[in-house]
Amino acid sequence: MEEILQQVRDGQLTVAEAKSQLATYENLGFAKVDHHRKKRQGFPEIIYGEGKTTEQILAIMKAILAKKEDVLITRISKEKAEVILQKYPKLMYHELARILSYQHEPSKPRSGYISVICAGTSDLPVAEEAAVTAEVLGSNVKRIYDVGVAGIHRLFDQIEDIQSATVSIVVAGMEGALPSVVGGLVAHPVLAVPTSIGYGANFGGLSALLTMLNSCASGISVVNIDNGFGGAYNAVLIDRMVMDEGLSCF
Amino acid sequence: MEEILQQVRDGQLTVAEAKSQLATYENLGFAKVDHHRKKRQGFPEIIYGEGKTTEQILAIMKAILAKKEDVLITRISKEKAEVILQKYPKLMYHELARILSYQHEPSKPRSGYISVICAGTSDLPVAEEAAVTAEVLGSNVKRIYDVGVAGIHRLFDQIEDIQSATVSIVVAGMEGALPSVVGGLVAHPVLAVPTSIGYGANFGGLSALLTMLNSCASGISVVNIDNGFGGAYNAVLIDRMVMDEGLSCF
Amino acid sequence: MEEILQQVRDGQLTVAEAKSQLATYENLGFAKVDHHRKKRQGFPEIIYGEGKTTEQILAIMKAILAKKEDVLITRISKEKAEVILQKYPKLMYHELARILSYQHEPSKPRSGYISVICAGTSDLPVAEEAAVTAEVLGSNVKRIYDVGVAGIHRLFDQIEDIQSATVSIVVAGMEGALPSVVGGLVAHPVLAVPTSIGYGANFGGLSALLTMLNSCASGISVVNIDNGFGGAYNAVLIDRMVMDEGLSCF
Amino acid sequence: MEEILQQVRDGQLTVAEAKSQLATYENLGFAKVDHHRKKRQGFPEIIYGEGKTTEQILAIMKAILAKKEDVLITRISKEKAEVILQKYPKLMYHELARILSYQHEPSKPRSGYISVICAGTSDLPVAEEAAVTAEVLGSNVKRIYDVGVAGIHRLFDQIEDIQSATVSIVVAGMEGALPSVVGGLVAHPVLAVPTSIGYGANFGGLSALLTMLNSCASGISVVNIDNGFGGAYNAVLIDRMVMDEGLSCF
Amino acid sequence: MEEILQQVRDGQLTVAEAKSQLATYENLGFAKVDHHRKKRQGFPEIIYGEGKTTEQILAIMKAILAKKEDVLITRISKEKAEVILQKYPKLMYHELARILSYQHEPSKPRSGYISVICAGTSDLPVAEEAAVTAEVLGSNVKRIYDVGVAGIHRLFDQIEDIQSATVSIVVAGMEGALPSVVGGLVAHPVLAVPTSIGYGANFGGLSALLTMLNSCASGISVVNIDNGFGGAYNAVLIDRMVMDEGLSCF
Amino acid sequence: MEEILQQVRDGQLTVAEAKSQLATYENLGFAKVDHHRKKRQGFPEIIYGEGKTTEQILAIMKAILAKKEDVLITRISKEKAEVILQKYPKLMYHELARILSYQHEPSKPRSGYISVICAGTSDLPVAEEAAVTAEVLGSNVKRIYDVGVAGIHRLFDQIEDIQSATVSIVVAGMEGALPSVVGGLVAHPVLAVPTSIGYGANFGGLSALLTMLNSCASGISVVNIDNGFGGAYNAVLIDRMVMDEGLSCF
Amino acid sequence: MEEILQQVRDGQLTVAEAKSQLATYENLGFAKVDHHRKKRQGFPEIIYGEGKTTEQILAIMKAILAKKEDVLITRISKEKAEVILQKYPKLMYHELARILSYQHEPSKPRSGYISVICAGTSDLPVAEEAAVTAEVLGSNVKRIYDVGVAGIHRLFDQIEDIQSATVSIVVAGMEGALPSVVGGLVAHPVLAVPTSIGYGANFGGLSALLTMLNSCASGISVVNIDNGFGGAYNAVLIDRMVMDEGLSCF
Amino acid sequence: MEEILQQVRDGQLTVAEAKSQLATYENLGFAKVDHHRKKRQGFPEIIYGEGKTTEQILAIMKAILAKKEDVLITRISKEKAEVILQKYPKLMYHELARILSYQHEPSKPRSGYISVICAGTSDLPVAEEAAVTAEVLGSNVKRIYDVGVAGIHRLFDQIEDIQSATVSIVVAGMEGALPSVVGGLVAHPVLAVPTSIGYGANFGGLSALLTMLNSCASGISVVNIDNGFGGAYNAVLIDRMVMDEGLSCF
Repeated sequence: MEEILQQVRDGQLTVAEAKSQLATYENLGFAKVDHHRKKRQGFPEIIYGEGKTTEQILAIMKAILAKKEDVLITRISKEKAEVILQKYPKLMYHELARILSYQHEPSKPRSGYISVICAGTSDLPVAEEAAVTAEVLGSNVKRIYDVGVAGIHRLFDQIEDIQSATVSIVVAGMEGALPSVVGGLVAHPVLAVPTSIGYGANFGGLSALLTMLNSCASGISVVNIDNGFGGAYNAVLIDRMVMDEGLSCF
Repeated sequence: MEEILQQVRDGQLTVAEAKSQLATYENLGFAKVDHHRKKRQGFPEIIYGEGKTTEQILAIMKAILAKKEDVLITRISKEKAEVILQKYPKLMYHELARILSYQHEPSKPRSGYISVICAGTSDLPVAEEAAVTAEVLGSNVKRIYDVGVAGIHRLFDQIEDIQSATVSIVVAGMEGALPSVVGGLVAHPVLAVPTSIGYGANFGGLSALLTMLNSCASGISVVNIDNGFGGAYNAVLIDRMVMDEGLSCF
Repeated sequence: MEEILQQVRDGQLTVAEAKSQLATYENLGFAKVDHHRKKRQGFPEIIYGEGKTTEQILAIMKAILAKKEDVLITRISKEKAEVILQKYPKLMYHELARILSYQHEPSKPRSGYISVICAGTSDLPVAEEAAVTAEVLGSNVKRIYDVGVAGIHRLFDQIEDIQSATVSIVVAGMEGALPSVVGGLVAHPVLAVPTSIGYGANFGGLSALLTMLNSCASGISVVNIDNGFGGAYNAVLIDRMVMDEGLSCF
Repeated sequence: MEEILQQVRDGQLTVAEAKSQLATYENLGFAKVDHHRKKRQGFPEIIYGEGKTTEQILAIMKAILAKKEDVLITRISKEKAEVILQKYPKLMYHELARILSYQHEPSKPRSGYISVICAGTSDLPVAEEAAVTAEVLGSNVKRIYDVGVAGIHRLFDQIEDIQSATVSIVVAGMEGALPSVVGGLVAHPVLAVPTSIGYGANFGGLSALLTMLNSCASGISVVNIDNGFGGAYNAVLIDRMVMDEGLSCF
Repeated sequence: MEEILQQVRDGQLTVAEAKSQLATYENLGFAKVDHHRKKRQGFPEIIYGEGKTTEQILAIMKAILAKKEDVLITRISKEKAEVILQKYPKLMYHELARILSYQHEPSKPRSGYISVICAGTSDLPVAEEAAVTAEVLGSNVKRIYDVGVAGIHRLFDQIEDIQSATVSIVVAGMEGALPSVVGGLVAHPVLAVPTSIGYGANFGGLSALLTMLNSCASGISVVNIDNGFGGAYNAVLIDRMVMDEGLSCF
Repeated sequence: MEEILQQVRDGQLTVAEAKSQLATYENLGFAKVDHHRKKRQGFPEIIYGEGKTTEQILAIMKAILAKKEDVLITRISKEKAEVILQKYPKLMYHELARILSYQHEPSKPRSGYISVICAGTSDLPVAEEAAVTAEVLGSNVKRIYDVGVAGIHRLFDQIEDIQSATVSIVVAGMEGALPSVVGGLVAHPVLAVPTSIGYGANFGGLSALLTMLNSCASGISVVNIDNGFGGAYNAVLIDRMVMDEGLSCF
Repeated sequence: MEEILQQVRDGQLTVAEAKSQLATYENLGFAKVDHHRKKRQGFPEIIYGEGKTTEQILAIMKAILAKKEDVLITRISKEKAEVILQKYPKLMYHELARILSYQHEPSKPRSGYISVICAGTSDLPVAEEAAVTAEVLGSNVKRIYDVGVAGIHRLFDQIEDIQSATVSIVVAGMEGALPSVVGGLVAHPVLAVPTSIGYGANFGGLSALLTMLNSCASGISVVNIDNGFGGAYNAVLIDRMVMDEGLSCF
Repeated sequence: MEEILQQVRDGQLTVAEAKSQLATYENLGFAKVDHHRKKRQGFPEIIYGEGKTTEQILAIMKAILAKKEDVLITRISKEKAEVILQKYPKLMYHELARILSYQHEPSKPRSGYISVICAGTSDLPVAEEAAVTAEVLGSNVKRIYDVGVAGIHRLFDQIEDIQSATVSIVVAGMEGALPSVVGGLVAHPVLAVPTSIGYGANFGGLSALLTMLNSCASGISVVNIDNGFGGAYNAVLIDRMVMDEGLSCF
């Protein structure tokens, strides 16, 4: 702002020009935040596919691709994905994760990894939504699946892989006890993702959600039911801050 | 009934006598069940102390003692207990368990034991209600306390004691994940007792209750929140059936 | 472990071999529990069919059959079962129970039985899931159906059969009052299974679940809504402990 | 109205007088209903004492007594009642029921009775609120207490008294199963009153309320939790309609 | 029983015969209640059609018709009804009420009537279930529909018809306020039937249910959500007791 | 902003001064909104007293009075109010409404009024919070109390007063049906305020809240349970827009 | 009434005629309210299309059109609308809003406007239901869509348009935070409409509903989940009162 | 393990010694994790003070101080703290945060900071619990208080401080909308802490909890209601990983 004001004083800018720039600046104030985010996070708009028509998705995608930016569409059904893939065969559809993605260039290699841990096979779609999201956003991922607490030795067999991760995403339905056990065994943040898998008094994921919120282990935070994307987004934010060199902005 | 009818036919019973006996028999039909229970279970009426006045408790106790039967009063505050102990100094008050008890003779020795497992120190009153109830009802008890899932190695250090029990009572509040872990490690029934310990989204024990009902481990059944007595009663029923010799009636 | 260490000392095992064995042993520590379970419980992995594809079920089944072990698949629809039956015509489909099972040899005869009690005809699928599960796991079952509390004389007509069981599974929807009545009439453990049968303020089985958790009768424990399998699994654990001779391990 | 109009036509009423009377008539339209109610029901305003100050209660009472009408105050604590009794020593305080009442003349004798049935001793205050309300409103009452379903023979011992009632009020907390059992054994309407007695997953009476609403027995209707007064009021309406001779207005 | 015993004494009955009779008597004790109900209520078994197959319904119907008794099937879809009507063309299907009925003889005329009051047109199926049930069970019915509180003058236009009823059934969804208004205007019992009609924070009828349970008007009792049958059954019990002459048994 | 820029160009402002002013302007951007609000609404900061100490309240009050602005403190107990009144005896405490207020000058007279309607006497504190708030904020108020739907003629006796209001605030607990009835009788907006008055299935005001949200009458909007202030604030916004002359800003 | 009575006195009306007129008058008392509403609100009956058959809708429409009144049908599917449009091609179907409407004459121009603000694109159907309803009822509408709080600069870019509205309708699902932010920035009433858009712990709109009810911003009132019509109806009532000249009746 | 085995082979360890060491190793396996945690996290056991007696707290504290470790006790009342401070005057009590702490040495200086953001003054105790916990665990903290969304300019005035933090903890009660707004403005992880502050439909913090779980902004994860400690613990884990140099273990 100081610069603009000096240009006004120096007659380099008319009042009208300055006003427009400062007005723009107000908008840029927020838009800058947006660009900041893009630069730091390496990823533009993410499209939540559920409830959007194929036409709407195509329109948003077109705008994103026009800016030469990468594409990440979550919660998109196979049917819709196939229509889009016919027009944009370079995109990649991750069926289990229900994600459609495109990267102009591969992510640059990064050390460290996020562990994505999953209690049961029925929780796989949510776990894969987390894993694929994290990969497309540039993190390495180690998948550790089907290690629910009812057979806890399966978890212990892989505990070193889990302990060496930068951050863990723990996906569980039914009673959702896995994050508590993992949280007690690691020294890094645990993102807990409850799933709606279960029946009866599961109440659509409420049981797993409450379990995770009430965990007696420290270092656990929770995202919405079935929100694999949300777990991954949080984990990538942490992973990138820890692993990237150029974090001068912090 | 056949016997009574034959006595009527043989003139050993008048019609009035038979009618009274059969009427009694109708009552005895249910009362017999009651006596059966006493004989098999070795214990009469149990008094739920909450909401009863000291006078009411004393009146019921007097009736029980008059029948030379043992006394078990649960959920009785220290204040009420002290009043009763002044009149009946032979009774024993278990303060943490909030139980007042009296046995005319010690329980006859029995092999095997019930393990009472408890997640955190705040769950102790409920665990002790379970443990003392089980002991007064004649079972051996092994207490395994403060072994919550957030520090799961504490549980594993005692896993053999747990696995050797006839039946386990697992008491946990907050996220209530402990029964799921125990259930996956033992081959006997697990009685899960949720507690109201916790805060926030614990909702008075609802979180632990839902966790236990939705457990992915088999062999777990659940009683009401804070119902240590109920867990113990179920466990003793099982323990006695397995351990007692004279179960010819089954 | 001692044996392995002595073999190391005696040169019978190289360090590498011992390490591998002890590592295995660590895994075996948990896997042993698993084998223990198999030996004691007479049954390997049970497949929860809901949410699994026919292909997934076939893959798991193949692994189980390769080990010459018995098969028990719950919550499997008629459509999926028919596909599997075409490949494995020896399997048996229990339509009402939605269970697919196969036993290499018939269960060895056992004395005693589990009573499976059911309030209304709409609760039959859950009751049958419990009954068939118990039978496949090796227990005898006596079915006592359609004896809801609104016509309580139907229950009393069969009370002796119920009282003679080792353990009872009581299945009820709507107000779920049956376990309370049964619990007051028997001297053995009652596994209460709420069902989602009902309408209006039934809230998907919540009313029956709460009723059973709050039962004023002792000796009742509860499993998840519609969880006939869970009720049966608990009951079989108890039945086997009481009835089997060779329970030296307890 | 016709009469008033004719008096207008005949000059017996001025327009102003008629207008006032018809206006009054409009009010009387509703007030008449009120008087109708008093005549038919034999009882004026009932005072709900909870949340009212002693002064407020005294003011309303004074207005009622000024009309020579009877007094019924529910939910009034012993402390408030004692203050009022000092001023109006003729009133009667029913301590367990927390009711303060006064009848100018005793109710005229009526045949038949309402049975007030109660599951446990903790439910007594609500049962007594129902019983005393019904008596003060002029019905005969037979109290049948402590007959919960966990010891169902106690209920059967008094089933004939219950079956002979005109209408039953069934009061129960915890799992609230008693109305279902009673409803299946009688041929008259059952008013079910859930109580907040219980703990844990009782949720302040919700469990008993849901049980009663979902009853599989016909002929049961439900009032609010702990609303002994409401159960009695409904029962008295029915009892009076059945028992009173002069029901010509129906 | 006395009679049987005397016959035994007199040798008119053998011990075996008496035993069988007394055993029967025990069963008859409850069965008698059943016959009593039939005699008093003029109607046998009522079939709840939901969740039953056409075959199951036909089998129960056949048994009922074999006893020359009337038929009342509730919650039966048009499709199932049409199949049954092809076999039993004498039955009558009430489409809106989803009821299938048959009376061997018309109900004998009875004075008085039940008013069935309904808030909105969407509540009609539940109101009709109530109205048709009441008619088939022998009561007269006056339908007063579409008189919700948002246009309360429609209710007042028919208030005299409502006030003259023996008992009212008030059916309402959404906010369910109608029973409170009716309850303040009549001097007879009001059966409130909440419906699941509504959206958003209606939560499947919960809002109307809570409204009715919390009504500040006296003389209102509530049945389950959408339970038009239950409202009618209660109302008929009352109507019959008030209107029938031969109620000597009460 | 244009003015500031021109002053920069003209040398009347230095760059630093302009920057500071524009920075202030950014703040003023939002602060201006604040001042706007004060000018339009005639009232500054309102203090929510609950959970604040007397010291905190005094500190905020001092700041407000320093600006010569009026004071409105809601949810303040008698004890705290008395402490404050000793220091500021000119303030006025409205005990039933639990409001402490001070106006430097009386509100200028305004035509029209808000009707504050209240179902029962227990709802009075919430109704008074609404009424006093509206008065202190400058509106005229007509109180219409104790007109609950169970005695609906009381409402009709005052319907003209209600219909003539600019906007109505309707306060009701228990079943909360009153706003639906009022909403059907008036042509102006109705602000519905549920209260927590009630017991049992009232669940702390939930029943009244759901009733009001599901109202079948149009023109009703709802604020939080017991939020008399919120109802009044909305009503005053409307009343002022309708009644004030100088609303050129809209 | 006075006039009628004088005509009776003067013999201009017979008693019968007067009685009928006064009776009519009673009905007219309420009907008058209705006509009042029509005159003041400029719109007759609004048809809620959900759950009504095409035939029912056509019948009601016919009655409305016969009175030369305008038509507004909400929640009507495209299928039903097309059937109706074939008969009445002059009607207009708003597909996104699911509204069918017809105005005999265009609304007369009015100054001012309602701003309809919407958080996300998935909330559009509810926002459009609000916007179209408001337009058909005669208000001007400014649509401000896709300005959710997660990118709050989008909201600020349009804040002046929002602040200049007479009243705002704010539609939001998921966490529903938008009304709180808008409420803090404007000086007019905000009608908050929660939507059921979301997943997981959204619980069908409950999360957005609770957010809006608990808003810390003043001047916000709430309607039912997804109730765009309700929000619009309230907003139009306010807008009309503020903007119309001829509001002498208030 | 390899080392131990080689020592066995080499005769340096007897079999018994090795067995003991390996057994210890098993325990050490988990204990090592514990030590790892201490070394990495710079802090031993944290004491949750709620529900613990002063004696229990003193006993645990003594054990911790004996190991020369730092002390952090949360949720400890002033009364208990004063008793402890008399014995250990070096401890520091943070009254608003209800935390008692002691550090043997000051935390070593670290760059970067955690921003603790708080919506209203009533949320301060939870915010302070978070801030003090983070400080005692070694992070720098910037407090940004009283910036709720209803006056969103207060937030924007401090947005640069917030954006420069490594991680933000956002504490809010009532509608809990603040994390959504912050999440849309920053590029680092946001830990959302709902509080139980509010009334009415706040339901003990449920409204804020659901709001935060359903946030439409990415990068937000949630801890339990009022769990300021949990928010801080997660934030410190992240802050340390980003800011500490010696994180070679990751």
